[in-house]
Amino acid sequence: MSESRESRESRFAAVEAALGYSFAGEMKIGGNYVSVVRHSDQVFVSGQIPRVGNEMVVTGSVGADVSLAQAQVAAKVCTMRALALLRQSLGSLEGVSRVLRITVFVQSAQGFTHQSEVADGASEVLYSVLGEAGVHTRTSVGVYQLPKNAAVELDLIAAVE
Amino acid sequence: MSESRESRESRFAAVEAALGYSFAGEMKIGGNYVSVVRHSDQVFVSGQIPRVGNEMVVTGSVGADVSLAQAQVAAKVCTMRALALLRQSLGSLEGVSRVLRITVFVQSAQGFTHQSEVADGASEVLYSVLGEAGVHTRTSVGVYQLPKNAAVELDLIAAVE
Amino acid sequence: MSESRESRESRFAAVEAALGYSFAGEMKIGGNYVSVVRHSDQVFVSGQIPRVGNEMVVTGSVGADVSLAQAQVAAKVCTMRALALLRQSLGSLEGVSRVLRITVFVQSAQGFTHQSEVADGASEVLYSVLGEAGVHTRTSVGVYQLPKNAAVELDLIAAVE
Repeated sequence: MSESRESRESRFAAVEAALGYSFAGEMKIGGNYVSVVRHSDQVFVSGQIPRVGNEMVVTGSVGADVSLAQAQVAAKVCTMRALALLRQSLGSLEGVSRVLRITVFVQSAQGFTHQSEVADGASEVLYSVLGEAGVHTRTSVGVYQLPKNAAVELDLIAAVE
Repeated sequence: MSESRESRESRFAAVEAALGYSFAGEMKIGGNYVSVVRHSDQVFVSGQIPRVGNEMVVTGSVGADVSLAQAQVAAKVCTMRALALLRQSLGSLEGVSRVLRITVFVQSAQGFTHQSEVADGASEVLYSVLGEAGVHTRTSVGVYQLPKNAAVELDLIAAVE
Repeated sequence: MSESRESRESRFAAVEAALGYSFAGEMKIGGNYVSVVRHSDQVFVSGQIPRVGNEMVVTGSVGADVSLAQAQVAAKVCTMRALALLRQSLGSLEGVSRVLRITVFVQSAQGFTHQSEVADGASEVLYSVLGEAGVHTRTSVGVYQLPKNAAVELDLIAAVE
């Protein structure tokens, strides 16, 4: 178990390093909602946008202002935020037994139809960090606008031990 | 418990009064689907639009035809509908142990990026009526069109006792 | 039980025949995600687009390139794919005790507000094949773009025995 724990932590750090962003520190949100709710053995994570600290790192419409490659980075950042929130809530990522569902909303320019390819960025991070437990179902759609002009938004449901 | 029951009922009535709409009476939908499905200790509520009786109370695109303040009212109406349906299905709101997830779809004009602020209307109603049990995870996105030209649509998953 | 099994299978075949598409054979997807994840007594099915084999059968924006009737066919094809995946994953459709939630994303032209009517195609198939177990909650929204220019995308959560 401790080996496995080390492993997910170190793989999380490896993705952090590859992206060039830190997801350390307490993540706060305001309002009458929260980032994570656990019920029984399921955990729900609120929709995440590609924000690191106070900075939105990828904004604009994918297919116009934002390239596919940039959108994949955005999807990775959203996913790392979701993982960081799970880690913060559960104490470590070891308790995640399976990612059940992600929904990936891509702020899309007219005619952009590669939402699945954008979502591949998210899927890749989940598998990189969690291994088989990160293999999930997913839905990816192209929406008209996202909060704060985010290029991507992602939410998640996971099973925990 | 009876004190608590009274309290949720009276807070529901207080929000009704503040909005100026009544959510009394049987709510019907047609078709091969239903408004509420309970499975084990989870309840799923179908997407709600801001309809009271047969009247759509807020239609149009938010950021163009519809102001932020009007959109927040729309989000509140959707939320009250969801609560009314839960109450109808469970017999009272006392059985709701936690709202797990809401998804808020905002029919958005080009350039409108305040979907989270619209969703704050929903979050406020859930907390007002259910207290801590109403503190939830949420995802808010801006979509291109909604059924019946609704300004907002909201769905919900809750845990019940 | 065997009578019921025959019945769902034969009703599935009847819808297949009515649509004029076959959903036989292994359905594959690539990437670090899967079409179906089961956790405890819930099954999550990834977002399905109206593809049969390698062919997208309904593409374009509903209300412009695609009629309501064609969009309903698209919704039916998505639903049959979801059912075929459930059957493949569970061994048969008999194990489905209830469809809990479907979300129907309709690639919508400006001004198209009949997303609920599009989703009726999905609801009809679920009821036709699964009977009462197919009566579900649903959310239908109009999005700007879908993967591969699909007219409709649908995902699903079901309870299983």
